[in-house]
Amino acid sequence: MKMFSWLPVSACARVEKVHWQCMIPTLTWTEDGVRFLDQTKLPLEESYVLATTYEQVADVIVTMVVRGAPAIGVSTAYGIALGAMRSQAESAERFAPEFEKICARLAATRPTAVNLFWAIDRMKKLFATLAGSGKPLDEIQQRLLAEAHAMYKEDIAACKAMGAHGAALLPQESPGDPADRSSSVGSVGVLTHCNAGALATCGYGTALGVIRAAVERGKRIHVYADETRPFLQGARLTAWELMADGIPTTVICDNMAASLMRAGKIQAVVVGADRIAANGDTANKIGTYNVAILAKEHSIPFYVAAPWSTIDRATPTGEAIPIEERPHSEVTHHAGTQLTPNGVGICNPAFDVTPANYVTAIITERGVLRAPYTDSLREMELVAG
Amino acid sequence: MKMFSWLPVSACARVEKVHWQCMIPTLTWTEDGVRFLDQTKLPLEESYVLATTYEQVADVIVTMVVRGAPAIGVSTAYGIALGAMRSQAESAERFAPEFEKICARLAATRPTAVNLFWAIDRMKKLFATLAGSGKPLDEIQQRLLAEAHAMYKEDIAACKAMGAHGAALLPQESPGDPADRSSSVGSVGVLTHCNAGALATCGYGTALGVIRAAVERGKRIHVYADETRPFLQGARLTAWELMADGIPTTVICDNMAASLMRAGKIQAVVVGADRIAANGDTANKIGTYNVAILAKEHSIPFYVAAPWSTIDRATPTGEAIPIEERPHSEVTHHAGTQLTPNGVGICNPAFDVTPANYVTAIITERGVLRAPYTDSLREMELVAG
Repeated sequence: MKMFSWLPVSACARVEKVHWQCMIPTLTWTEDGVRFLDQTKLPLEESYVLATTYEQVADVIVTMVVRGAPAIGVSTAYGIALGAMRSQAESAERFAPEFEKICARLAATRPTAVNLFWAIDRMKKLFATLAGSGKPLDEIQQRLLAEAHAMYKEDIAACKAMGAHGAALLPQESPGDPADRSSSVGSVGVLTHCNAGALATCGYGTALGVIRAAVERGKRIHVYADETRPFLQGARLTAWELMADGIPTTVICDNMAASLMRAGKIQAVVVGADRIAANGDTANKIGTYNVAILAKEHSIPFYVAAPWSTIDRATPTGEAIPIEERPHSEVTHHAGTQLTPNGVGICNPAFDVTPANYVTAIITERGVLRAPYTDSLREMELVAG
Repeated sequence: MKMFSWLPVSACARVEKVHWQCMIPTLTWTEDGVRFLDQTKLPLEESYVLATTYEQVADVIVTMVVRGAPAIGVSTAYGIALGAMRSQAESAERFAPEFEKICARLAATRPTAVNLFWAIDRMKKLFATLAGSGKPLDEIQQRLLAEAHAMYKEDIAACKAMGAHGAALLPQESPGDPADRSSSVGSVGVLTHCNAGALATCGYGTALGVIRAAVERGKRIHVYADETRPFLQGARLTAWELMADGIPTTVICDNMAASLMRAGKIQAVVVGADRIAANGDTANKIGTYNVAILAKEHSIPFYVAAPWSTIDRATPTGEAIPIEERPHSEVTHHAGTQLTPNGVGICNPAFDVTPANYVTAIITERGVLRAPYTDSLREMELVAG
């Protein structure tokens, strides 16, 4: 596909009406299929991948052309809608086994982010209701697509709501040393890990949504972005999208966080999540648990920002969350260059689990949750009905 | 220069008589100058750089063809000897200002590793004594070279002694789950950061010397090597030299350590040091402080192995240790490939300081030091006279 350049605002508005102007088209439904901004090529190349079949959507998720729990959820919904639209079946009844196959293929892409399974469940329930009430296949196809569109819009709305709730938690000013003449004087230093931004969602972002909302409310934020080995989501994606929004950003290697915290440069940590267990244990990108420990040691608040769809009340604790082991080549090679000697052992877990006791608060679109999370999650579930 | 292949044992023995057979020729005095194994090219290419002038030795240190505090110290001594040998001066008196210039150039290479300044001081004292007693320049040249050779031999002997002291600290067996069928069952998991090995010394290594000594004493060790961004000393150098010795090694990204610790895979951490203040605060490769905090949080002992020349009693605490900021390109690029967007802020401190209260023990060639280090360092200094 053609290279992507920044869309003019009018074109952005055409894609999706939101109040946030500089929209990053992470994923977009088109007449030809689902168009993804290829995140494996950023920040050096802004190009699209067009998935014209549900199998291609699955491939796009596996290869991390699109990544981030909320974006994976909505991509999956669009993948199911696409599979339904492309079906040659003549009736809903004949389509039913194909629908199961489509869902199974998408479910097999990545095991940790629960939003994927949440999206599949939601689409399955809708399909069961529609098929059960004898709706014709063409109406079912349109309703599945409409559901995916709804999830897309809900995702952006959830990010905006998380932003509003979370922005209030970030301090107005740094207690920094006025003798320090660096550009970040007076700014609040916020550390983030991986990319929980517009690129991990349908737009605006979860952790980066909190930061964007704080900036919109006049807070001076300087973001420290962990580069996030091995896939470098922080160095490549977080840096790219925050620079596009003009938010001051410094990329650091993952192992530099502790010394920055000790030097008083970090006032808060905000990260996203791939799955939050019923007790608040949080699976997120590998290295998040490291950061949580370092934050605790330096008495810095550690916030998790995630939509309600990331909360998995069926999983009691973090120990039951499956952790994906990614290909070792992500660690041993970069851009075709070999980093390690042949034959050395490699670990590449894509996620880790941060126990709930390290989490200062969980920021959702419904509000801010505090420990004990088993109680606060249950209460908010009841309130939201 | 020609590519390096493993020297036969007889050739190793010719270079330097040590009991450790598979010697890695980190740095070697030759008739033509100082020959360095080019560590920027490892593990993909084993090639030499020959420094024929003291300025070239300085360049080799700045560009990290050779790195590691003890190796930098001895390289500096050889650089001074080389500068003296190449001098066109006709007398010691005429050579004196040139000697100062040589020392100043080498002192300006890297600010953190105190072994560099220790080597310069030792060579300066020798020169002052010899010049003061009216020795002819040719004798002074030979004595300076002999002093560098002595430091080379002392370094390997110190590493072997550190190994003997430190090996006793590592457990005999892992308390691991016998149901775990990984190759590391029963092995003691030892995490190390950066490269404090043969490549960081004249041979054998400090932290890796402790591991080598434990293996020689029959302990089953499985090393987890932090890859150590941005220069990847762990992924490239530690992995390479431990594989050469047949010690089981797994490379992990720096941000994976906490989850491995929580999973019970790590029984001890052993790292090197670039400068140890009088109170035990330890400057070492960036990320060491992170590892120390993670070890404390998981009740895992955190050991520092370093020769006595790394202890800087003139620096009262870690706050007074200068921290080198390295070129940002080390973070933004790898092997010519750009990782980050143009213009983003970057941090690249080469070292951090681990406060003494995180250090379980300091392993030196004189013995094992325990907190309070101000007292134990003073006592051992008195004992050693």
